[in-house]
Amino acid sequence: MDLDLQKYAVRTDLALEARELAARDQPAPLAGISEDVEEDNGIKITRLDVLNEEGANRIGRVQGHYITLEVPGLRGGDTGLQERVAVAFAKEMEHFIQKIGISKTARVLVVGLGNWNVTPDSLGPLVVENLMVTRQYFELTPDQVNPGYRDVSAIAPGVLGITGIESSEIVQGIVDRTKPELIIAIDALASRSLERVNTTIQVADIGIHPGSGIGNKRRGITKDIMGVPCIAIGVPTVCYASTIVNNVIELMKTHFAKEKASTKAILGMLDDISEPERLGLVREVLQPLGHDLIVTPKEIDEFIEDIANIIATGLNAALHEAVDPGNVAAYTH
Amino acid sequence: MDLDLQKYAVRTDLALEARELAARDQPAPLAGISEDVEEDNGIKITRLDVLNEEGANRIGRVQGHYITLEVPGLRGGDTGLQERVAVAFAKEMEHFIQKIGISKTARVLVVGLGNWNVTPDSLGPLVVENLMVTRQYFELTPDQVNPGYRDVSAIAPGVLGITGIESSEIVQGIVDRTKPELIIAIDALASRSLERVNTTIQVADIGIHPGSGIGNKRRGITKDIMGVPCIAIGVPTVCYASTIVNNVIELMKTHFAKEKASTKAILGMLDDISEPERLGLVREVLQPLGHDLIVTPKEIDEFIEDIANIIATGLNAALHEAVDPGNVAAYTH
Amino acid sequence: MDLDLQKYAVRTDLALEARELAARDQPAPLAGISEDVEEDNGIKITRLDVLNEEGANRIGRVQGHYITLEVPGLRGGDTGLQERVAVAFAKEMEHFIQKIGISKTARVLVVGLGNWNVTPDSLGPLVVENLMVTRQYFELTPDQVNPGYRDVSAIAPGVLGITGIESSEIVQGIVDRTKPELIIAIDALASRSLERVNTTIQVADIGIHPGSGIGNKRRGITKDIMGVPCIAIGVPTVCYASTIVNNVIELMKTHFAKEKASTKAILGMLDDISEPERLGLVREVLQPLGHDLIVTPKEIDEFIEDIANIIATGLNAALHEAVDPGNVAAYTH
Amino acid sequence: MDLDLQKYAVRTDLALEARELAARDQPAPLAGISEDVEEDNGIKITRLDVLNEEGANRIGRVQGHYITLEVPGLRGGDTGLQERVAVAFAKEMEHFIQKIGISKTARVLVVGLGNWNVTPDSLGPLVVENLMVTRQYFELTPDQVNPGYRDVSAIAPGVLGITGIESSEIVQGIVDRTKPELIIAIDALASRSLERVNTTIQVADIGIHPGSGIGNKRRGITKDIMGVPCIAIGVPTVCYASTIVNNVIELMKTHFAKEKASTKAILGMLDDISEPERLGLVREVLQPLGHDLIVTPKEIDEFIEDIANIIATGLNAALHEAVDPGNVAAYTH
Repeated sequence: MDLDLQKYAVRTDLALEARELAARDQPAPLAGISEDVEEDNGIKITRLDVLNEEGANRIGRVQGHYITLEVPGLRGGDTGLQERVAVAFAKEMEHFIQKIGISKTARVLVVGLGNWNVTPDSLGPLVVENLMVTRQYFELTPDQVNPGYRDVSAIAPGVLGITGIESSEIVQGIVDRTKPELIIAIDALASRSLERVNTTIQVADIGIHPGSGIGNKRRGITKDIMGVPCIAIGVPTVCYASTIVNNVIELMKTHFAKEKASTKAILGMLDDISEPERLGLVREVLQPLGHDLIVTPKEIDEFIEDIANIIATGLNAALHEAVDPGNVAAYTH
Repeated sequence: MDLDLQKYAVRTDLALEARELAARDQPAPLAGISEDVEEDNGIKITRLDVLNEEGANRIGRVQGHYITLEVPGLRGGDTGLQERVAVAFAKEMEHFIQKIGISKTARVLVVGLGNWNVTPDSLGPLVVENLMVTRQYFELTPDQVNPGYRDVSAIAPGVLGITGIESSEIVQGIVDRTKPELIIAIDALASRSLERVNTTIQVADIGIHPGSGIGNKRRGITKDIMGVPCIAIGVPTVCYASTIVNNVIELMKTHFAKEKASTKAILGMLDDISEPERLGLVREVLQPLGHDLIVTPKEIDEFIEDIANIIATGLNAALHEAVDPGNVAAYTH
Repeated sequence: MDLDLQKYAVRTDLALEARELAARDQPAPLAGISEDVEEDNGIKITRLDVLNEEGANRIGRVQGHYITLEVPGLRGGDTGLQERVAVAFAKEMEHFIQKIGISKTARVLVVGLGNWNVTPDSLGPLVVENLMVTRQYFELTPDQVNPGYRDVSAIAPGVLGITGIESSEIVQGIVDRTKPELIIAIDALASRSLERVNTTIQVADIGIHPGSGIGNKRRGITKDIMGVPCIAIGVPTVCYASTIVNNVIELMKTHFAKEKASTKAILGMLDDISEPERLGLVREVLQPLGHDLIVTPKEIDEFIEDIANIIATGLNAALHEAVDPGNVAAYTH
Repeated sequence: MDLDLQKYAVRTDLALEARELAARDQPAPLAGISEDVEEDNGIKITRLDVLNEEGANRIGRVQGHYITLEVPGLRGGDTGLQERVAVAFAKEMEHFIQKIGISKTARVLVVGLGNWNVTPDSLGPLVVENLMVTRQYFELTPDQVNPGYRDVSAIAPGVLGITGIESSEIVQGIVDRTKPELIIAIDALASRSLERVNTTIQVADIGIHPGSGIGNKRRGITKDIMGVPCIAIGVPTVCYASTIVNNVIELMKTHFAKEKASTKAILGMLDDISEPERLGLVREVLQPLGHDLIVTPKEIDEFIEDIANIIATGLNAALHEAVDPGNVAAYTH
């Protein structure tokens, strides 16, 4: 076995997972990382700040502020819980925007990334559809806008395969013309564990960094490129088949270790090798069959609609002071 | 009765209808208008050129080239006819692009105007979805693009109510960054007669001139604004309730005149007054009830899909030399 | 002009419209008709009972109980109003079911007629999708069903063109096997006036009487055929182009009569002739052009979803005592 | 470890997979099993007959005829291949129907099982939507039906959670009234390997045997219950997370065995234990986390549409002699 471990690094879009991976091999607390966890009635909120270069190196994430809402119960389709999550998310967003120094009247452009026609990738466009946009009133009849509303616009730029244009290029064109003071980009992510799929919302002030893609020319949606602060809201909606397998072997280790069984005897070499090595192994096995597929839960249609509704509802309340988190439902479909 | 006739001018987005209205009161041939009609097996093609200011004034349309395909049989859902229309449309588009001086390798941006979620207004986005875009290959691996393809990109910018941004402003931002040499904008139109709804395709090199809208700030997609030639492709998918009524009274006049009946006796004053006066009358009657609704045929879902497919198929063949009008179906869904 | 007036009778599926038409020529109160009107905050409720044969003849409707909710404001998309309508509808339904002698524990089969893929005809299937069905629990674990719920099942049988089987035949097969004690059938209707489209809900205990259709073999969903009481819930979602025209000429008559103008001078013969004659005239004019189209408002996608939600929400509250009309939203999407 | 191996038997709906599993432990040829494999240009067709009880026991499948089309290339979205698969499927279906003794004029009821609103479960309803039904013509105007067509009807009965009624009960009600001579039921299946998902079509004359479900009362669609022959067409569109893991460990064994590595050293106990034991182990590990999720590929929207089109096209050609497999596309959307 001779693996390019760099190539087989664990793919995750979540800072929380990156931190968890790092914490396995390093003693806590991690230098350069500040963390604050709160749990209330099924909603776990982790506020993780990557304070400096050292912290960034330790967990392999860009310096910045990260908030993660984990709500395992979201899979149950409980509308009461969904409403509570929307309220919690609205509150976090409001604080987050304030914390990074954005004023209550700053103009906001919401960008819904992804593809309308691919259900697990349709989160961004669905949020845009349910958002309360107001920019047209500020442009046409600014003196008639009620207090408590800010200037919000939104765009679902589509995907490269449909438009032939990078999303970031479309967004940049719009930013040049409409001059927003904050960009909020929403995207569907890949997770390394099935259990996080559709149950987790990540907010970060680092924008969108397109990791891979066709060629090296792929560009992101970040402050450097856009010239204004960029918040990214991400929800894992898919995961790789290989990461499921890898994840389960990891679970097996923990499971048998608890039972005080010899994990070495049970799992053989799988017990010894490092995670990237093991993942490399799994992919090596899957490759010839061409099926390291990206998968999504069977119930994805309903999940996506529910979570898009939560995010749109939360954003409407967070962005407009006049919109009450309690009755935000009235503003979305 | 004291009507603001300007306000009640017959609303139509079709040059053909404007010409028909003008022809009623003026002797043919109309000065400044050149017209060429061809009919083949259920497809009627009218090529109408508004040559100068005089022509423009006569029919109340901007100077430019207009092509109209009328296919009453399209309502029947006959797939054979649909294929023939796609081929005819591809041929016309190819000639049209050449005629207005656009080269075979000019970069094209296709703009699908309208709203995904309002069926009669979803034509533009549906065409974009079925289009063959190639710009990404020209950008990333230009040396690997096969001959016979041109650089095509596409965008469905959404509508003001969803984005808070004028479509034309979004398009302009994209044009600034991607520098296309031709814009083709697709939009759903209003017709003055129900029979043209979903059976007519209009092509014109005058771009999109948004007639009404919120406030006076509404901008168009024209060569003046965008800096590159703009072709508009329009299909009437709706009509006003008032124009249906007005249209029927007109039909009554023709009908009874043929029967040599006294139209005056039958229709009273409705027979005497001018069309704008009559339309004004109809609207005056409808107004208090607030129901000069915009209507669309009941079968709109299927119509829209069929016509979007025809236009996407035709554009794919017209824009890429390598795409054969005979087997274009393979390139769309 | 020589018209088959029978053939050109005014097409309406609404008892209220039939009564209005009858009232024009006959002095009120109409014998055999009992009527009760209530209006509250934008919702007008008319309870009309056709008591006997005489009443049935007068308005051309089957003997039975009819309730109509008219809510012109529904077009505005106001979610607050929608909720009030759902509550009012739930209340009416509950009383109606009681009034016609159905017990609180009677098993109910809800039938959603119409076609998923034709937006103005998709009301029935959409309601079924949002309904709270419970029959499976009564069948499998009857002792675990909470009090306050009744046995409810639902079916969207599809349309003849998709299934090759009459809806009523499918329903009868299901009734034979599942033995419901009440059928509630939901269908999209045609109205004679555009203003009633998507703003009116009719409830009647006469079932569904398919007027026309292919051949004479077309069967209904009525107590006679099914062997159990049948309630029909109908919402006009379309109207004929010809009835719009006819309707406007009627409005013109009223309009000019108010202005004390000579309607004869203005409308000519159109003023004299009876409504069926006039409608016949309009159709005669439209026929050769083949366009007495059935039309629907442009905004039909949103209207249908809103009204389906109102009906599903209302039915859930009316059928299950344990479901509170106040928080019914929690039970639907 | 103390596992209920019965409970953890490998879940698969495909006879081919069952035979493969059996073949691992038993010498070929398997008694009571007849098999014929044909491969042509990317389409592998396996005709497997379970001839008697002995064969049935060996592979754990009901006695009957099974055909499997495996087309790994289907994932590529190649329309040319899709057409060839539709033609091959039509040919197999035609022979299959003949082989089991159904006449060319026998009346057929097609049943599309599954849920419209859950993409990976919407195969059946989508096929029904694209099917050419003719029963209405045979019922209403039998003397006008062209030769070469048979009496075909179709139903998408919905799922228990939406209707409250077992699909098989709805079908039985319809069968009682419409008296078809053959039922063809279409359903989405679960596969034990991700690579078969959306690339495999199984045809069998054993009907649908609902394995699990709520309670023991769940009934199937079989000749015993319906009184007429029942053909089942199944396509795997999902698989269990646990079977992916199990599947990969199996692949690892094969992989390392080929490399002559010590699989025992590498995989530890996982190498020794039987497949059901291993699967049990995987599930035991996944259970506490509640995530033995059912997953589907990310591209499911497009896959489902493509495969539904192939099956509808193939059925139209197989059921009606007058429909040519070459131009069947004209009969579907």
